[in-house]
Amino acid sequence: MSLLICGATIIDGVGSKPIEGRAIWIEGGRIKAIGQRSEFASHPEAKIVNAQGQYAIPGLIDTNVHLVGTLFLDEFVRFEGRYEELIAEAAQVALKNGLTTVCDTWGPRQALIAVREKINAGTIPGSRILCAGNIIGLDGPFSENFFPKYLEVASSSFVQRVNSVYAETVGPELTWLPPDEVGRVVRSYTRSGVDFIKYASSEHRVPSGPSAYLTFSPAVQAVIVEEAHRAGLTAQAHSTSVEGLKAAIEAGCDIIQHGNLTGTVPIPGATLESFVKRKAACAVLAFSKRQQKVILEQGAPELRKSHSPAFMEASHQVNIRNLLSCGASLLLCTDSGYVSQEVMRDPAFEPIVGEDSLYALGSGHFQWFEAMQEHGMAPMEALKAATRNIAVALKKDKDLGSLEPGKVADLIILEKDPLQSASHYRSIGTVIKDGVVVDRSRLPLTPVMRGAAKP
Amino acid sequence: MSLLICGATIIDGVGSKPIEGRAIWIEGGRIKAIGQRSEFASHPEAKIVNAQGQYAIPGLIDTNVHLVGTLFLDEFVRFEGRYEELIAEAAQVALKNGLTTVCDTWGPRQALIAVREKINAGTIPGSRILCAGNIIGLDGPFSENFFPKYLEVASSSFVQRVNSVYAETVGPELTWLPPDEVGRVVRSYTRSGVDFIKYASSEHRVPSGPSAYLTFSPAVQAVIVEEAHRAGLTAQAHSTSVEGLKAAIEAGCDIIQHGNLTGTVPIPGATLESFVKRKAACAVLAFSKRQQKVILEQGAPELRKSHSPAFMEASHQVNIRNLLSCGASLLLCTDSGYVSQEVMRDPAFEPIVGEDSLYALGSGHFQWFEAMQEHGMAPMEALKAATRNIAVALKKDKDLGSLEPGKVADLIILEKDPLQSASHYRSIGTVIKDGVVVDRSRLPLTPVMRGAAKP
Amino acid sequence: MSLLICGATIIDGVGSKPIEGRAIWIEGGRIKAIGQRSEFASHPEAKIVNAQGQYAIPGLIDTNVHLVGTLFLDEFVRFEGRYEELIAEAAQVALKNGLTTVCDTWGPRQALIAVREKINAGTIPGSRILCAGNIIGLDGPFSENFFPKYLEVASSSFVQRVNSVYAETVGPELTWLPPDEVGRVVRSYTRSGVDFIKYASSEHRVPSGPSAYLTFSPAVQAVIVEEAHRAGLTAQAHSTSVEGLKAAIEAGCDIIQHGNLTGTVPIPGATLESFVKRKAACAVLAFSKRQQKVILEQGAPELRKSHSPAFMEASHQVNIRNLLSCGASLLLCTDSGYVSQEVMRDPAFEPIVGEDSLYALGSGHFQWFEAMQEHGMAPMEALKAATRNIAVALKKDKDLGSLEPGKVADLIILEKDPLQSASHYRSIGTVIKDGVVVDRSRLPLTPVMRGAAKP
Amino acid sequence: MSLLICGATIIDGVGSKPIEGRAIWIEGGRIKAIGQRSEFASHPEAKIVNAQGQYAIPGLIDTNVHLVGTLFLDEFVRFEGRYEELIAEAAQVALKNGLTTVCDTWGPRQALIAVREKINAGTIPGSRILCAGNIIGLDGPFSENFFPKYLEVASSSFVQRVNSVYAETVGPELTWLPPDEVGRVVRSYTRSGVDFIKYASSEHRVPSGPSAYLTFSPAVQAVIVEEAHRAGLTAQAHSTSVEGLKAAIEAGCDIIQHGNLTGTVPIPGATLESFVKRKAACAVLAFSKRQQKVILEQGAPELRKSHSPAFMEASHQVNIRNLLSCGASLLLCTDSGYVSQEVMRDPAFEPIVGEDSLYALGSGHFQWFEAMQEHGMAPMEALKAATRNIAVALKKDKDLGSLEPGKVADLIILEKDPLQSASHYRSIGTVIKDGVVVDRSRLPLTPVMRGAAKP
Repeated sequence: MSLLICGATIIDGVGSKPIEGRAIWIEGGRIKAIGQRSEFASHPEAKIVNAQGQYAIPGLIDTNVHLVGTLFLDEFVRFEGRYEELIAEAAQVALKNGLTTVCDTWGPRQALIAVREKINAGTIPGSRILCAGNIIGLDGPFSENFFPKYLEVASSSFVQRVNSVYAETVGPELTWLPPDEVGRVVRSYTRSGVDFIKYASSEHRVPSGPSAYLTFSPAVQAVIVEEAHRAGLTAQAHSTSVEGLKAAIEAGCDIIQHGNLTGTVPIPGATLESFVKRKAACAVLAFSKRQQKVILEQGAPELRKSHSPAFMEASHQVNIRNLLSCGASLLLCTDSGYVSQEVMRDPAFEPIVGEDSLYALGSGHFQWFEAMQEHGMAPMEALKAATRNIAVALKKDKDLGSLEPGKVADLIILEKDPLQSASHYRSIGTVIKDGVVVDRSRLPLTPVMRGAAKP
Repeated sequence: MSLLICGATIIDGVGSKPIEGRAIWIEGGRIKAIGQRSEFASHPEAKIVNAQGQYAIPGLIDTNVHLVGTLFLDEFVRFEGRYEELIAEAAQVALKNGLTTVCDTWGPRQALIAVREKINAGTIPGSRILCAGNIIGLDGPFSENFFPKYLEVASSSFVQRVNSVYAETVGPELTWLPPDEVGRVVRSYTRSGVDFIKYASSEHRVPSGPSAYLTFSPAVQAVIVEEAHRAGLTAQAHSTSVEGLKAAIEAGCDIIQHGNLTGTVPIPGATLESFVKRKAACAVLAFSKRQQKVILEQGAPELRKSHSPAFMEASHQVNIRNLLSCGASLLLCTDSGYVSQEVMRDPAFEPIVGEDSLYALGSGHFQWFEAMQEHGMAPMEALKAATRNIAVALKKDKDLGSLEPGKVADLIILEKDPLQSASHYRSIGTVIKDGVVVDRSRLPLTPVMRGAAKP
Repeated sequence: MSLLICGATIIDGVGSKPIEGRAIWIEGGRIKAIGQRSEFASHPEAKIVNAQGQYAIPGLIDTNVHLVGTLFLDEFVRFEGRYEELIAEAAQVALKNGLTTVCDTWGPRQALIAVREKINAGTIPGSRILCAGNIIGLDGPFSENFFPKYLEVASSSFVQRVNSVYAETVGPELTWLPPDEVGRVVRSYTRSGVDFIKYASSEHRVPSGPSAYLTFSPAVQAVIVEEAHRAGLTAQAHSTSVEGLKAAIEAGCDIIQHGNLTGTVPIPGATLESFVKRKAACAVLAFSKRQQKVILEQGAPELRKSHSPAFMEASHQVNIRNLLSCGASLLLCTDSGYVSQEVMRDPAFEPIVGEDSLYALGSGHFQWFEAMQEHGMAPMEALKAATRNIAVALKKDKDLGSLEPGKVADLIILEKDPLQSASHYRSIGTVIKDGVVVDRSRLPLTPVMRGAAKP
Repeated sequence: MSLLICGATIIDGVGSKPIEGRAIWIEGGRIKAIGQRSEFASHPEAKIVNAQGQYAIPGLIDTNVHLVGTLFLDEFVRFEGRYEELIAEAAQVALKNGLTTVCDTWGPRQALIAVREKINAGTIPGSRILCAGNIIGLDGPFSENFFPKYLEVASSSFVQRVNSVYAETVGPELTWLPPDEVGRVVRSYTRSGVDFIKYASSEHRVPSGPSAYLTFSPAVQAVIVEEAHRAGLTAQAHSTSVEGLKAAIEAGCDIIQHGNLTGTVPIPGATLESFVKRKAACAVLAFSKRQQKVILEQGAPELRKSHSPAFMEASHQVNIRNLLSCGASLLLCTDSGYVSQEVMRDPAFEPIVGEDSLYALGSGHFQWFEAMQEHGMAPMEALKAATRNIAVALKKDKDLGSLEPGKVADLIILEKDPLQSASHYRSIGTVIKDGVVVDRSRLPLTPVMRGAAKP
C-alpha cells in the first residue's frame, strides 16, 4: 500500500531545520521519497494523508522501558503466565502515544521475544520491541535487587519460578565468577534472540542509598561488552554512580542507562569527556520540576530519602547541564514501567508512577521532553535525542530514527509544532508505523493490566 | 435405586456392640431396614454389596475442617475466584477417605454454599458440607489473626477483596461493639445460608502465645449464641484458653472447637463438669505421639515454641485424659486444611501439615483415631465421637450419624475391624453416601490445588 | 514551721465559690486553719507568704503518669539500673509544674517505691508518688504489648531482665489462668508495697486497632478488684473499648483509666449510667483541638491511623460530652511519660509527646485543662477533677485534694484566676507541698533523662 | 632487667629446624643473644627461666581480630563510652593465650589507639595492638554492612553517635566518589595514628550471599593503597570474592584478609600466581573439620545457608589446598571478636562464636593451627604463618616475628612440641612480652565484657 503525506512541516531528525512544502511518499513500509507533491501525482492509488498545518516527525523511541511493570506481589502472581498479554498491551499503549519503538531493558526474555515476533509479523499492532531480557548480574524480582520482602511470604517454588523466568542463566551468581567464565555464559546469552545486551555496572537499588558498589569489576565488564559486540549486538550498562559510569564507558558500552544518575556527586569532567571520546551515548533520565516537587513534597519517607534535594541537584540539575554542554549524545530515557491503576493510585507509588509521571509508560516520554526543555536543551536536539541519536546508538540507523528515503516509515504527525513547545508532543494527530496508519482509538486491544482489577 | 449390603459386621453408632448376621437395606438414599438377609429376598432388583468379613460403620464426620487451605500468599492470589473448585476438590478428597460429612468452620461463605448446593443436588460428588462462613469476630486471612506479614506486600485492593470475602459483615469490628449491636449483625448473618454459627471466644493465634485474651465478653457471647438458636442453628466457639472455654460453655455453645487446647494450664474441674451440665460437646484436637515427636523435633523454632512440651502435656495429655473421664461428649476434630503439595513439603509446614498429619485434610481423621486410641479412648466411643455424637451436637441426628432405619444412608465398609485397631479406619473398602456407592477411584475429579503447580 | 498565706483568693476544691479575704494557716505540714488574717496575728513566728491578688488552689494530682518514659531501645539500656534517678527527676519536674501528687500507673515497682519513700521522708524533693507497679496481665516493655520489634535485636538476657523488672509475678501468663489462681497471685502482689492496683480490662495497644479484646474475663476482673479491696487498696482498670469499660465498672473498679477511649464506638447510655451507680470514677484523657490537629496533620501514618477522625469524634467529642452530662466523677488523666529531648524531637513522636503535649509529663496537665475548657467543662468542675475528685476516688480524701483544716498542706498559688481561663493554670507563682514552699528554680536536681545525651 | 631462658628447644621462626642446647639472653626488652648457656654465665643478675624440656617460640600474632566484639544492640548501648575497657580486657585475654601482638582490623579508632598507647607505655599489660580503625568504605555497626535491623529501634542520635565513632570520615559515602577525592580523604586518615590501612575490596556480608559486588573500583583501590604506602603504612583489603581478591592484589595490598574466601568459586590459577608475583600475603581463615561440622549441623538456617557445603568445599578445602601449594605467604587469621558469655551461649551465635571457636578471641588461634594441620600445612610453615610471615607482611620484621638477636623479646614457652601436634599450642607455660614474663593468672585485670551481666 502506498501513502502520501501532504502538507506537513517535516522535521526529519537529520537536518538542522524543518522542511516546508514537501510530501512524503511511503511504499512497502518504507519512505520511498520526500519531494514536491507534484512529483508524486502519477500515483493515484496512494492513500492521501492530509497533514496541512501539521508536523511530521520520526516515530519516537524510548531507550528504557519495562513492558511488564508488576509491582505488588499479588500482581506478580495474577499475571504469571500472562506476560505476553501484558507486553502486548504495553506495546500498544506505547504505540498509541507515539512511541514506534521501545527498548525493554529488563523483562522476561521469552515473552518479550514472542510478542516482538507477533508485532513484527503484523499479527498484532504494537510498538516495535527491542529487548535485552535480564540485566546481566541481577536477579529476578524476588531478590535483594528488587523486592526482598516478597521472599518472606511467597512459596519457594513460586519465587524460583518467577526469578528463573527473569534471570535465566545470567543472574547474580555471575558476580562471583572470573572474567572468562562470565564471558562464556554471556556468549551463550547473546544467541538467545535478544536485541541488545544490558548488564549492571553499579548495583541496582534506589538512586541514592548509603553506598554505591560495582556489580562487576571493569575486567568482567569489558568481557561482557566484547561478547555483545562479537555477536553483533550493542551493549548497555545500568549505572547509578560515578565509578559505575566510568567503568561502563571504559568497557566500551554503546549506551549508559540513566548515565546522569550519580547520587549526590556530580560526574567528574574527565568522565564527561570520555562519553565523546569513547562514543558512548548517555540515556538521560530527567524529571520535570513539577515531578521533582511532587516527589519531594508528597513522596513517602523512603522515596524522599532516596530522592533528596542534594540528589536532585547533582544528578538532575548539575549533571544534565554538564551533559548538555559536553557534546555527548543524549538519549530519551524514561525507565517507565507499564503499571496498574492500583499502583498508580497507591500512596506509596503515586508520586512516582501516578498518571502523567516519568516512570509511567505512556506519558513518561511527554514528561521527558518537558523536563529537557526546562533544562535548556535545544528543541531540535531534544527531537533527535528521541529519534535519530537512539537509532545510531543502537546501530539501527540504517532503518530507524529519521525521515529519509529508504528508512522504515515510522512517523508521527503532530498538530502543533514540537520545536515551539515540548508540550506539543502530546498533540498527536496520526501515528504511522511500518508505513501503516495506526488506528489509535482501538489501542490497547485487550486490556489486562489496566482492565478490571477482579480476575 | 435399592442397595443391599450383605455379610458385614454392622457397627451402627448407637448400640454398645457390633451386630452380626444382618443385612442393610437401602432405598431412596435412606436406610430402609436392617435385618436378616432373607427378609429382603423379595427385592431382586436391589444391587447387592457383598461385604462378607467386612465392617459397616456410619459415614464419618469431621467437625472442623477448612476446605480452602491456602497458606502462601501466592496461593491466595492464584486461587482467588477459584474457591469453588478448591472446595469441590477438597470435599471429594474428604469423601474418598470416608468423611461423608465435613463441617467447614472458617472459609469463604458464598463459595462454600455454592459447592454445598451442587453436592446436595448430586451435580458433583463430594462430602456433605456444613459451613459456618467466617468465625465471627475474626478478620480475613490478611490480618493480625492469620497472616499479618502479607499486608506489607500485597496491594490494598487485593487485601480488601480477599478479606471481605471471608469476613463479610462479621469481622473484627464487632469486637468494638456492645452486645445489642453485635446481636443485630449476627441475626442478619444467620439468614445468609450458613449451617451453623461459629465465633471466637478467645483470640486466634498459635495455641500457646504469651497471653490469652477474650475476643468477646461473655455478655456478647451469650447474645451471639442466642441469635444462632433463635434462627434454628447450632453455635460453636473457637477456644484456646481456660477462660475462653468457660465463657463459651456458659454462653450456651453446642460445640467447643478444640476445647482441649488451654495452653499450658489444664482445664479446671468445674469447667470439665460444666460440659455435661450445659450439654456442650467438646471437639477434641488430638495429636498422636508420632506427630508430637515430629513437631517437637523437626518443627521450625516458632512451631516448637508454640507447641512446647508443657503445652503438649497440659492441652494434650492431661486435658484429654480428664475429658475422657468427665463424661463429656467428645467429637472428632482435625482442624485440617486442604493444602498444596508445596505447603506439605515446605520445611516450615511439613512437620504439621505434611502427608499423613492431623492438619492435612484427607489423612487427619485417621491420625485422630490413632491418637485417641493412644489416649485410651474405648474403640466404640471413638467411633461414636466421629459419627453419632457429632450428629447429636449439630442437631442433625434425625438424619445423620448412625446406621438405623430412616437415617440417610451414609456408611463406610471397612476391610478390617475398627474396634480392634484404630489403624483399621484406613482400610476403606467402600464408601456409600446418600445410598449411592462412591466411585473413589475417580476422586478428586479435577485437581486444582493438588494439580500441576504451574498455572 | 508555720506558714501564713495571706491575700489570696482561695479556691478550696470543696465549695462552689472562691473564698475571699481569708488567710491559710499551715503548721506541721497540714492546714491548721483558714480564717481572717487577724485571727492568726498571735503567731509572729510564721513565715508570711504574701499572695495578694493571687489564687490559692489545692495541689494538683495526675491520675495517670509514667515516671519512667523510655521509648527507644537504646534508652532502655542506657537507663537500666538508673530508674530511681529517672523517677526522681520526673517527680521533680511534675512538682515544679504544680503536681503535688502523681499516680504512676505502669512502671518498675521497686524503683518507684524506693523513690516514693525518699520523697516521703523528705530526703529529696518531688511530687508525692502513688504507684501500681505493673498493669496486671501485661508484660514488660519488650513484648507484644509495647515494643515487639525490640525482641528481635536485644539479647534474651537483657529482655528477660527488663521485662521481669516490670511484669514481676503479674504478667501476661495470668491471662491463661482461672479466677482463683489469678486471685492468689494478685493477693500476694497487693502486699508488695503498691498504693493501688491496676489491671488491663481490654488489651493494650494503640487506641483504635482492628479489634478490641478483653484481657481478662469479667470473672477474673471481679477477683482482682476484690483482692485489691480486701487489701485496703483501690483498683483501676486500663480500658479502651466499650466492653472493656463495662466489664471494669461491673468488676467494681474505683477508677477507669482513659474511660473515654472506646475506639470509634461511643459509650452506650447504660454504661454511662453505671459510672454513677457503681461509683466508678472516669479518668478522662482529653486532647485539645490544637493537639488533635497536630496529630491528624503531622502525625506519622501509623499515628494517624490509630487516631483517625472517627476515633477523635467518638472517643473525644461524643464521649467527653456525654460523660460531662451523665454526672460521673471525672478525673484529670494525661497518661504522660517522662521522655527525653530526643524522643520529643523525633519525627515519629513529636506530634504526640513534643513540648507542650498531653503525653509529655510536665506540660500534659496544662493541656488537659485547656482541652476540658474546650469541651465545656465548668471551671470549678475542672479544678475539682484535678484535685478533690481524685482524692476521693483514691480514698485519700482524708488527707489530699482540698484546702480544708486538717488536710495535708499541698497547694499552689497561681498568679491568674484559673476559673477565668484554663490557661491560667500555667501561671504558677508558688508550690507548697507538705506545708513547705518548694524551690522550683532548683528542679529537677540532677537531670539524667533530660541531661546531656552523651553518657 | 635481664632474663635468661634456659633448656628450651628454640624454634626461632626463621630457620628450618629447631635449635637445641641454646639459651636466650634478653635484656632491655629485646633479645640480646642466643647461645650456649655458658656464654651467659657472667650475668648472675639475670633472672633464670628454666624451660628444660619445653619449647620457646616467637610470640604469636593474629592478623585479624576485633577487640570490641559487641553483637546485641543492648551491648552496644551498655558499652558505649567503655570501649577502652573492653579493648584492654580483650588485649589481655589475647596475651594470656599467647598472642603477643594482635591486628585490630575493624574497631573504634580512638579507643584502640588510647589502649595501644597505654599498653606500649607499660601502664597496663596487654597484647601489642596494631590497628586500622574503620574498614574504609564501610559504615559503622548500625548499617546495611553489619546490623541493619538495629536502625529500626534505636534513636537516631544513638545510631549516628556509634556509627560516627567507627566510620569517622572513611565511611560508605566514599564509594560514591571518584579516585582523587577518595585519595584526599584517605591521605588524611593515614595521619590519624592508625598502624595500617584496611579497605573493603568486595562488599561486607556473610561469606556466600547471592551476589558479590566490588566496594571500590580497581582505580579507587589503587589510590587507597598508594596513599597508605606514601604514609609509610601497609595496606590490607577485606575480600570475599574472586574479583575482589584480584582487584586487591593488583591494587598492591600487602595483606588480603581471608583471601581464601571466594564463595563457592575457587580462586583461578592466575590469581593464585599473582600472590607471589605481587608479594601479597594471604591471611587464611580456616575452620577445623569439627567447626565445619558444628556449623553445618547445628547452625541457624541463615548460618547454614551462608556456610553451605559448596562454600566449605571451595573456600576452605580447595582454596586452602591451592594456596598451600602455590607458594603464597600465608598468615594466621581468625577474624575473631571479643564477645560476651551471652553471645557465646545464644543459639544463633553459639555454633560460630561459642567457646573454643575460630571466631572467639582467645581460642580462635588454637583452632586455626588445628585446622591448618588438617589441611596439611607443614608444622614449621604453620608456626611461621603465625609469626614471622605476618611481621614481614606488616613490614614489622625488624622488630617482631622471630627469635633473633635484636628482635623484641616476645616469646612463648610451650610445654609440648608445637611441631609434633597443632594442639600443643594450647600448652602455654610462659608468655614473655617485651622481655617481661607475663603474669597470666591475673588476666584480664578488670573483666567488663565477661564480667557480671548486670550493669
